[in-house]
Amino acid sequence: MQHTVTFTFDDKPTTVAVPTNTLLADAARLAGIDIGQPCGGQGRCGRCALQVTEGSVRRRSTLRLSDSDILEGYALACQTVVEGNATIYVPPQEKIERRLTTDRVVAEVTVPADYEYLQDQIVRRIHLQLVPPSLEDQTDDWSRLQTALRLQHRYENVTCSLSLLQGMGEILREGDWNVTAVIDIASVVKSGETDQSVRLIDLQPGLVDEFSPLWGTAIDIGTTTVTLWLVDLVSGQVRAQVAEYNGQIARGEDVISRIIYASKNGGGPELRQRVLDTINSLLETACKRVKAKPGNVVKAAIAGNSTMMHLLLGIPAASIRLSPFTTAVNHPPVMTAREVGLNTHPEATVDCLPGVASYVGADITAGVLSSGVDVAEDVTLFLDVGTNGETVLGNRDWLVTCACSAGPAFEGAGVVNGMRATQGAIEEVWINSATCEPTYRVIGGGKPKGICGSGLISLLSEAFITGVLDKAGNVNLSINSLRVREGAHGGEYVVAWGNESASGDDIVLTRVDVDNLLRAKAAIYAGFTVLADTVGIPLESVSKVLVGGSFGKYINVEKAVQIGLLPDVPWEHFDFLGNTSVRGAYYALLDWRKREQITEIARRMTYIELSADNSFYEAFTSALFLPHTDMSKFPSVAEALENKQVDK
Amino acid sequence: MQHTVTFTFDDKPTTVAVPTNTLLADAARLAGIDIGQPCGGQGRCGRCALQVTEGSVRRRSTLRLSDSDILEGYALACQTVVEGNATIYVPPQEKIERRLTTDRVVAEVTVPADYEYLQDQIVRRIHLQLVPPSLEDQTDDWSRLQTALRLQHRYENVTCSLSLLQGMGEILREGDWNVTAVIDIASVVKSGETDQSVRLIDLQPGLVDEFSPLWGTAIDIGTTTVTLWLVDLVSGQVRAQVAEYNGQIARGEDVISRIIYASKNGGGPELRQRVLDTINSLLETACKRVKAKPGNVVKAAIAGNSTMMHLLLGIPAASIRLSPFTTAVNHPPVMTAREVGLNTHPEATVDCLPGVASYVGADITAGVLSSGVDVAEDVTLFLDVGTNGETVLGNRDWLVTCACSAGPAFEGAGVVNGMRATQGAIEEVWINSATCEPTYRVIGGGKPKGICGSGLISLLSEAFITGVLDKAGNVNLSINSLRVREGAHGGEYVVAWGNESASGDDIVLTRVDVDNLLRAKAAIYAGFTVLADTVGIPLESVSKVLVGGSFGKYINVEKAVQIGLLPDVPWEHFDFLGNTSVRGAYYALLDWRKREQITEIARRMTYIELSADNSFYEAFTSALFLPHTDMSKFPSVAEALENKQVDK
Repeated sequence: MQHTVTFTFDDKPTTVAVPTNTLLADAARLAGIDIGQPCGGQGRCGRCALQVTEGSVRRRSTLRLSDSDILEGYALACQTVVEGNATIYVPPQEKIERRLTTDRVVAEVTVPADYEYLQDQIVRRIHLQLVPPSLEDQTDDWSRLQTALRLQHRYENVTCSLSLLQGMGEILREGDWNVTAVIDIASVVKSGETDQSVRLIDLQPGLVDEFSPLWGTAIDIGTTTVTLWLVDLVSGQVRAQVAEYNGQIARGEDVISRIIYASKNGGGPELRQRVLDTINSLLETACKRVKAKPGNVVKAAIAGNSTMMHLLLGIPAASIRLSPFTTAVNHPPVMTAREVGLNTHPEATVDCLPGVASYVGADITAGVLSSGVDVAEDVTLFLDVGTNGETVLGNRDWLVTCACSAGPAFEGAGVVNGMRATQGAIEEVWINSATCEPTYRVIGGGKPKGICGSGLISLLSEAFITGVLDKAGNVNLSINSLRVREGAHGGEYVVAWGNESASGDDIVLTRVDVDNLLRAKAAIYAGFTVLADTVGIPLESVSKVLVGGSFGKYINVEKAVQIGLLPDVPWEHFDFLGNTSVRGAYYALLDWRKREQITEIARRMTYIELSADNSFYEAFTSALFLPHTDMSKFPSVAEALENKQVDK
Repeated sequence: MQHTVTFTFDDKPTTVAVPTNTLLADAARLAGIDIGQPCGGQGRCGRCALQVTEGSVRRRSTLRLSDSDILEGYALACQTVVEGNATIYVPPQEKIERRLTTDRVVAEVTVPADYEYLQDQIVRRIHLQLVPPSLEDQTDDWSRLQTALRLQHRYENVTCSLSLLQGMGEILREGDWNVTAVIDIASVVKSGETDQSVRLIDLQPGLVDEFSPLWGTAIDIGTTTVTLWLVDLVSGQVRAQVAEYNGQIARGEDVISRIIYASKNGGGPELRQRVLDTINSLLETACKRVKAKPGNVVKAAIAGNSTMMHLLLGIPAASIRLSPFTTAVNHPPVMTAREVGLNTHPEATVDCLPGVASYVGADITAGVLSSGVDVAEDVTLFLDVGTNGETVLGNRDWLVTCACSAGPAFEGAGVVNGMRATQGAIEEVWINSATCEPTYRVIGGGKPKGICGSGLISLLSEAFITGVLDKAGNVNLSINSLRVREGAHGGEYVVAWGNESASGDDIVLTRVDVDNLLRAKAAIYAGFTVLADTVGIPLESVSKVLVGGSFGKYINVEKAVQIGLLPDVPWEHFDFLGNTSVRGAYYALLDWRKREQITEIARRMTYIELSADNSFYEAFTSALFLPHTDMSKFPSVAEALENKQVDK
């Protein structure tokens, strides 16, 4: 039976006809209204609440609604179905800013030392001068091209797709039997021996200038943020860097929510399309910057966690979240852009890098490669601070790894005034311990729009050290300052008044924000401490702590230690590397030896499953404080607190 | 500017609006009327003539129209464009019967002697019992399957498509970690060494009965006829054989017409779709017979001449007909049904067998394999009597080959009462030399519908020996018999009167038919004589003459020699093999050693280009007589004629 449902959104009514038992979220989508579902449609977050002003609906779950909410007609779009005609008011939706962004500083990228122009790359552009056919030599076009590849460049057994074969004859003749080929040299390990297989990606008539750019892209698909580098494969130089929120974020903020959403009717294809849209839009922006066309990009190397990789490829990810937590595939086969759905050259190689386990994906193997843990002489700790907190411990002889779900708080999501580290973000905060008045620095200057990850760490640490927050994260409402007040969600601290901010509203840190941040830092801290315990290596004996993650590069070590996110070891042991995942993908894009090294890293890493480990839960609970229940683990913080005490 | 054109066909008017300069053939297609273009739309055959009863058109060519035709408004649909509103009468169209047909006798197919069940085939079905994942063993699904393939069957480095990866997790769990896999073992020659590469085609939950059928198909794409065998890959038995006219025939009867049609706007995709439709419909019919589904067919091996192969794959074939007559590709890469467009299992391997040159394709290499020329001790002549006449001469030490365009006359096309060798076809004719009255045998008994290839050879020979036709093919109108008369196209001979025939019309052999048949047989004869001359082997020293081709099996040797189609050597030297091409494809489908042998045959064959050879034209001209200008080449025929002389 069909019912008429009218949605009013932005003062505009839209009416749709849907059958009984249609989910309100689906009906709204039919009406062209996209209701955000940060928890992936599980009824957990309560953010998709709509107000039913008239008519008949059935609520499957009201977990996040109060009795008075229900009396007022509120219902969760992801948990409520249509039973008759209805009129529904859609409150303003939390908008995820989807403006294109770049990192504050374009990270300096160094071409690998062993990179040799036109000689050692995976993707190569070569000139071929063919002998034209004649009645004496009627060899077919493809064999003629293969002969030139063999005689002029020593490439044997080159493969080529049907679509290239379809265009080959015309290109050879247009170029008067002089052509420029782009080939991909993949190494294949067969029966223990390394073999090379060569694939033709592109063919152009004539001899194209060998130093003109040849485009490739290195991509890191984060749960929260997608980062894309556009690389000139001839020089090895990164020519554009762009980043954007992952378009899937509207359907769940963490991997678990995404997996649940993907398992529901049509959710998988939708999430796949969303991340493809994000990547393709980033690709277009990056290409515009250097006046190139996406269709000229001939190779993509992709890193990302295992869930992101499954969703990108349309592979069901359900087994990742259910015990015994296995992936469908850790090392996807090499594919073409046509198969994957990227708007590059359709024959472009898409190389999805190998991961290790459900929660230690290709972002980490790529990170290990680019941070050099696998070749380090001394024991090194590698932390990836992102939505998922992964840790690797080891050196050139052994590597162990584990993972925990940190949540997106440090990427600015799940925090009321959180934002990515772009123009207008507060990136550092200082609080006067006497007056509790803050000072802050805004990226790009100007009025602040919100607070990014490094700003949140800085704010949390300052608020703790100055006593605005106590050890448990409670706001000290007894402080005599307008900055400290009771808000809608408990105590809150005002970082910027409305008259200073870009939006005109106060920028605040709420009790809920603090809880989210504490959970994130506790999970990361618990992860690496349990890992170190498991292999019996005391944290103090670790010679180097390497921190990756999209905002890793901008963390203030002192403050990160003060909130208990990083271990209390001498500052000189830390190294902040930024997005190690996209950097690893960049190496894998250029250099087939590096690409093999990543496969070897994935093979060597031993994964420790924390969910099977009670000690992780204990370590997590102990770390849900500022900086930790056990202050003896943070001697430098204890000292700082005493100094403050002395100040007062 | 748009014009209104009304077509009247079958008493039914249809009106369409088209812009200036639209071809009448295209406008008619828009009106849903398919105008046959046997010459491929070159204005050569005149068969697409329509009558313009009103309005304005422009004739680009009137080559096939008389002045009175033009006065009556006739115009060639392929050569005339719309200039204003028009009303057009469409004469009844020559219909190509597209009923499904099978060969008269289902050829007995022998499973290769060295065929070993479940052990030596290219495609294999294997059982795999996987260790279920646990918290102690979190290996990903694909690696787990690869481990089972390695440990339980010793297959290393198995590859698999994205779409199989997408379904893998569910299948493994549904089968409770017991699965049945179908794999394809292709041999790859790398740097001189034979290597094996294994590809996963299909995965089913549970352990499927290992002796239940596993379907594959061997296909021969002839210019005129497409033949398909459905094979149980487990037992090696051919379970169904079907054949049908190639759907492309409406767009040209020979390869040259097809290439021209394909080069015109949209012609290539149309011809590709037409042959795919033919194959897919044959596949469906064959599967119905054995109660299988096309989607369960896991491999196709395809033979066919080079033009057919290019058109099937959508590869431009233009270079085949232009000097220096090269193909785009002689040995297409192995593809999947998804890429090619076959309605088998989408992951089914499609193996297009290798050809040698533009006019010696995979049908011939497959024919050489199945006829054994390449392993013969003595010099053997192999003839493929089809729309193209290809010849191979050689033995286990050397192989030379050449080709000529015979046309489709012997397949019943281009002959007024010609038809394929199916129910109702006259397959043999005897003429009483005294009365000139014929006797004939009809396939399946009953009233005759037309004459098939073997019937035409028999008829031609009898008519010649009895004096109904002279040496040059002229009908002897001075004979006192109603059977001999002046027809619309010159002299003709009545084989069956209307009251004996299925249609009620007389079945005749016309002067034009005789010319077409003479050209076909002359081309074939000239081909092999020039080839033998080129290598200096007298035809008499050939120890064996092997005749392939769809109707080869039913040729009466005496009569074929009498018309000068086959050389005048002792009858016991002949062997008629039927469709050697589909048989070769069958071997290549089953057995990877045979498949390698075909590649080796293609490599070994030396192609002699006849177009560069004046002697071919001379030989052809000399052979345009019954049996030949030089009677000394046909001593047995000279003797037969003398005997007849004595009879009278």
